[in-house]
Order: sequence, then structure tokens, then C-alpha cells
Amino acid sequence: MKLSHRITHLTPSGSDGWEVFYKARRMKAEGQPVTELTIGEHDIRTAAPILDAMHAAAKSGHTGYAMVPGTDALRDAVADRIAARTAVPTTRDNILITPGGQAALFAAHHAVLDQGDRALYIDPYYATYPGTIRGVGGDPVAVPARADTGFQPKAADIAANAEGAKSLLINTPNNPTGAVYARDTLDGIAQVCIDHDITLISDEVYDTQVWDGTHISPRALPGMADRTLVVGSMSKSHAMTGSRVGWVCGPAEAISHMINLATHTTYGVPGYIQDAALFALNQGPVLEDEVAAPFRRRRAVTEALLSGQNTVKASPTQGAMYAMLDIRSTGMTGNDFANALLDAHLIATMPGESFGQAGAGHVRVAMTIDDDSYATAMRTLIDFAAMQAT
Amino acid sequence: MKLSHRITHLTPSGSDGWEVFYKARRMKAEGQPVTELTIGEHDIRTAAPILDAMHAAAKSGHTGYAMVPGTDALRDAVADRIAARTAVPTTRDNILITPGGQAALFAAHHAVLDQGDRALYIDPYYATYPGTIRGVGGDPVAVPARADTGFQPKAADIAANAEGAKSLLINTPNNPTGAVYARDTLDGIAQVCIDHDITLISDEVYDTQVWDGTHISPRALPGMADRTLVVGSMSKSHAMTGSRVGWVCGPAEAISHMINLATHTTYGVPGYIQDAALFALNQGPVLEDEVAAPFRRRRAVTEALLSGQNTVKASPTQGAMYAMLDIRSTGMTGNDFANALLDAHLIATMPGESFGQAGAGHVRVAMTIDDDSYATAMRTLIDFAAMQAT
Repeated sequence: MKLSHRITHLTPSGSDGWEVFYKARRMKAEGQPVTELTIGEHDIRTAAPILDAMHAAAKSGHTGYAMVPGTDALRDAVADRIAARTAVPTTRDNILITPGGQAALFAAHHAVLDQGDRALYIDPYYATYPGTIRGVGGDPVAVPARADTGFQPKAADIAANAEGAKSLLINTPNNPTGAVYARDTLDGIAQVCIDHDITLISDEVYDTQVWDGTHISPRALPGMADRTLVVGSMSKSHAMTGSRVGWVCGPAEAISHMINLATHTTYGVPGYIQDAALFALNQGPVLEDEVAAPFRRRRAVTEALLSGQNTVKASPTQGAMYAMLDIRSTGMTGNDFANALLDAHLIATMPGESFGQAGAGHVRVAMTIDDDSYATAMRTLIDFAAMQAT
Repeated sequence: MKLSHRITHLTPSGSDGWEVFYKARRMKAEGQPVTELTIGEHDIRTAAPILDAMHAAAKSGHTGYAMVPGTDALRDAVADRIAARTAVPTTRDNILITPGGQAALFAAHHAVLDQGDRALYIDPYYATYPGTIRGVGGDPVAVPARADTGFQPKAADIAANAEGAKSLLINTPNNPTGAVYARDTLDGIAQVCIDHDITLISDEVYDTQVWDGTHISPRALPGMADRTLVVGSMSKSHAMTGSRVGWVCGPAEAISHMINLATHTTYGVPGYIQDAALFALNQGPVLEDEVAAPFRRRRAVTEALLSGQNTVKASPTQGAMYAMLDIRSTGMTGNDFANALLDAHLIATMPGESFGQAGAGHVRVAMTIDDDSYATAMRTLIDFAAMQAT
């Protein structure tokens, strides 16, 4: 079977930095007690009342084709939540419900990129970003955010790559770096988008996980509502990763075309899952805080443990469920460090290099295991780094 | 916001023949007792035991990220079902679980089409087919199946359009025509695919709804397993339309690339829905026959009512939940007939023209209301046609 060039070149061949992750999985499968600090998934499951709401909806008959754009009720709830948090007028016409944040990222890029169009994204980056751009025929171009600015991207770096670009993808709070973009950073980004007529695609799936500073949605900045597509999701905020329910928020005309696209890509999201998402959103910030609390606690543990030494430095752990640790003082690459730590202590972390070039010399720690185990693993990691550095 | 040419041209502007459908929906919303024979959705809901299995899976914690290709258990069950029905060796490596048949159609076309590639499909066609091809950058080309052959496409018609084509999309049992492709038809199609190095995309979502003849999967024909992608779904066979769970079956290498694509488009299907689908498949043919039974009964009603007159002719109602009625003896177009029937008797049908040019002079009746109401509506339709013809 002759396959398309696009699908066979979706991701580059050769190392992607995930070898240590797969090695850890193999070791675990073989029965070794590996501590995994790798994946962005809660150590709790979806709350029982949400699942009960889902079951009630299904049993009441909400099992047929749902409206492709999403149910009116869920679109309204998402719009109200966004309007309340950003003060940007938002209605259901600005919302498309998607089967998860990844589908929203795909739809947003499909909406603005034609074959060969230049599409910017910030390095370090979530693993699917360049492949998502390639998947709609775009040409992904990485713009580095630098460790010495706490991974806040600089407008000048973006502008230097902006000629001919159709889109810029950002993510704040950021995976993998834990950065929460400052107002200055976002003002600079907005200006580049306006100057170069670029659509901003803003991945805000970690918007409820902010430990330091404030999450600002760039859609709320002057002149940006008509040129921003916001990607949101229930995955991280409500521990509903497996339920695959998210959204795109943007100008009504763009959303109406994306609804047409959704008719041809996914044909809607299960109605009972939408009812469960609606139930979850209606619990308000109390539930969101409860889901975020373990990461807030473990972030404090991280800060406390790091404060007692000088070998390992954290990028500012401002948000999201990760700590990006600078281990350059050991003289090792992130990849070598992660491999050595796994071999020596059965602790699995993600090499910074697996998130792009700008993450080199770092490892990303997912704060997704119970507090005590997390503290023990962090202590071991820090001691191990100190041994390497001496 | 500057939108992509691809998304803004996904579907043509102007009439698509769905006006009568929307008119009926408006009339119903205004309180008029419209009988809708329009949409391919069961008049039953998903069976309670399936929903209970789903709830049990969710409550037991299957709410985190599922494996992107699908669970091993569901992939195995789908592979076993296909192997049992077609005798083609099939394993989980040949299966990608998708969020519904539409996502499978999109993935299959993405896998074989690059920008501008010629892609064939048979007219009359399910509404999303040409837009799905455009959505991956392909150039859709309709090949007519003719009423006078019972809508069995002719190999010569396909061959005449095959030069440079990368894919051919077929659907048997067929929506909207109710045709079940004969062995001869499929042999001819296979030969054209082999002669012109075309990948066959075979939409078989109605494979459990066969009233006359036998469903043959073209993947089972000589030389075709390596050049066929089969699209399947739980929607029609198990009344799980809203649950959005389906699959692509094809060569392992193609599937492995489609798994990579799925990582970038949807990131998997909810684990608890996959568990529900597995439970449903494990009920075997008994449940499938139960779900198909109402359409089998109403198809018999259709045949009986049509046998008493000469105005309305059915294309052979061989399969699927539709009857494609030839009303050309009235001198009306399908569109005019559907509109007039709606106005006169509040019965909504789909004009054949809404499924392409080859459906002109027909209306499609979905057999998706209770038996008595269905018989009454069919009698009224037949009497109305007789009045028009005189």
C-alpha cells in the first residue's frame, strides 16, 4: 500500500529522546520497582460523582448522535467559564466541543494552515506539536525559549522567525517547563502576531494549575480576540484525561468552519460525556482546586528540597504538574542523566531533549505520584546529581 | 482571522439538497407533527447492559489515558470478528480503534492522499465523503452508480476515472441506496484497484444489516488484503451511534502510521467506551440480530406495500436501514417530491439529489420509526406518488 508522504513523515525518524521512557516501561513490565515521574497524568481517577452523572445521562437515553458542535448546555458552560475568567464576551458560537485537547489542536491548525504554510511553535514543546502541524500539511518551525529567561519566549526571537508564518502555537502554563507566561511575554507575543498577521493558537489546558503568578489568556489582550484560537480541555483541570473532551474557543466564523471540519473528522463527542463534563464544570472552582491540590503540595516539596543545595536548579515552577530541573552543573546531558538515574535508582524522568533542543541539560519531573514517594524520589535525584557533579 | 483555503472550501457553497431536512426540523420545532424518515439512527437506544458495562469500567478506574491504538482486548476482539467473517488472517496489529467510523474514514484517506491527489468515491454517497477527501487535501471525483443497475457500480465507469487516482471509497451495504454489492461488482472493483494501483477504502459500517444476498468484504478478495483499508463501527451494528467508537482494519504498516496520526488527531478513545464496545462485541450475533431486526421487519413492510402498485419502485432493498425509492414516474425531482410530501402530509424524506447526481428522481426513506407509524407513512407516500403520477 502506497502511503501518503504526509503520514509517513509525520514524525522524524531517529531518536526522539523517548528511549528512556520506553526503557522504564520495559523494566517495569519485567517486574522492577521503577518510580515513574514521566507522564502528565493524575494519580487520582475521575471523581465518582462525575462518572455517576455520566451514567445517569447514558441511562436516560443520551446515547444517540450528539450535535456535532457540542450540546448547547456544554457550549454555554464553557463560554461562560471563559467569559468569567477573561472578561472577553464569549457565547456558544465561539465554542466547538472536541474529543479532547489534541483534537482541538489539530482542528485549530487545520483551520489556519494550508499545504506548506509556515507554523511556529515554542521549544521546549509538548511532544505532539510539530507532528500536529505536519498532519495538516504545515511546515513546523521551532522558536527557542531559553532557560536563562525561565523559558519565557522573547518577542524578538519569534519576530525573527515570523516572516511568512501563518500561526504561532504557545502553551501557558507550560508543559514541560512549568513556566507561566508573564504579561510582558504575552504582550510581546501579541504584538508580533499583530505585526505579522499571525493567528495565535493558545494551548491553555493547564489553566487551573498555577502556583506562582497569574494565568493570562492572550485572547483577552487588546486586538487579540479576533486572531486567537484557545485550546481547552477537561483532562488536567478535572482529572478526565481518558474521557477525551475539550474545546476550541475563537471567532464565530472560524468556529463555524471548524464545526464543518468536525463533521468530517470526528462527528461529535458522546452526549453522555458532554453531560459529565457539564456536571464537572458546574462544580465550580472547588473541584478544580481539589484536583490541583496534590501538585501544589508537591511543588512546595520540590522547592523546599531544592533550596538546600546548589547542584540542581529548577526553572521557576510556576504552574502545571511538572518541574523542569536544570542539571547542567553535572556536566551531563538530560538524556545521559535520565538514563543514569534510571539505571542507578530505578527513577524514570523525561530528558529535556525529548521536548526539543531548548530543553537540553534538563530533566522534566512529573509530580504525579503520592507525596511521600515523590519526596523520596526527589531527594534521591538531588543526591544523585550531587554525586555526578563532584 | 485568515482561514485556510482547505477548511473554507471543505464543502461547496450553494444548495446541498438538505433544505427539506432543515425545513422539517424547523416545522417540528414549531410543534407540527412531522414524521421524520430522514436520519440513519435507530429508534432504540444503546442497550442497558452495555451502558452498565461502561459504568463498571469507569468506576473501576479505566478513566485515564487509554493506549492510543486502542486497548489490546478490543483490538483483539475486532480482529477476531473480522477474521471469523472474512477468513483473512487479522491480528491487533491490523486494527486501529477510532472515535467512530467518520474518524476512521478521515484517517484512511489521510493515510493514502497527499495534497491534490485524486480520490474516487461512488455517487450516490453518504454526505461526508467528498468533504472528508477535501479535508485531507485530496481532490474528490464522483463515479456514478446507476439506478438501472440497482446502484451496483460498474468497473468500466470506475476504470474510466482511475487514471492517477490514489484511492477509491466504496460502501456496502450502501447508504443511501440499500444496495449490497454483488461478488461480480466487487471483483470488478478489485481488478480496477489492482490495475491502477489504487487503495480501496471500504466502508462496511452496515455489515450486520443485510436482507438479501451476502455481505462480502473486498479485503477478502484475491490480492486485496494489502491494498484495502476497511472502516468499521459499533454505531449501526450495536446502536451505539453516540458513543463514537469504530476502527480501521488494514496492513500492519499502514495501521502503525495511522496510530502515529491518531496520536496527533484524537489521542485515543475513552477506555470505558472501549470496554463497553468489547462487552457488546462479546454478546455475539444475537445482539447484532436484535439491533437489526426492526429494519428487517420494516424492509418487509416496504416490499409488501410496494408490490401492490407500479408508481414507486424500490431499488433492491438489500441492506442497511434505508429504502431508496424511485419516484421518476411522477415526473418530479426527488427534491420537489420530498418538499411536496412534507408540505402535504408532514412526512420528511431525503431527496436523492442530496446524495449526489446519481440519486436524482429518488427519495431515501430511513426505516427508523416504529413499525405502525412506518407502515402508515409509507402508505401515504405511495398514495401521494400515485396522485402526482396521474
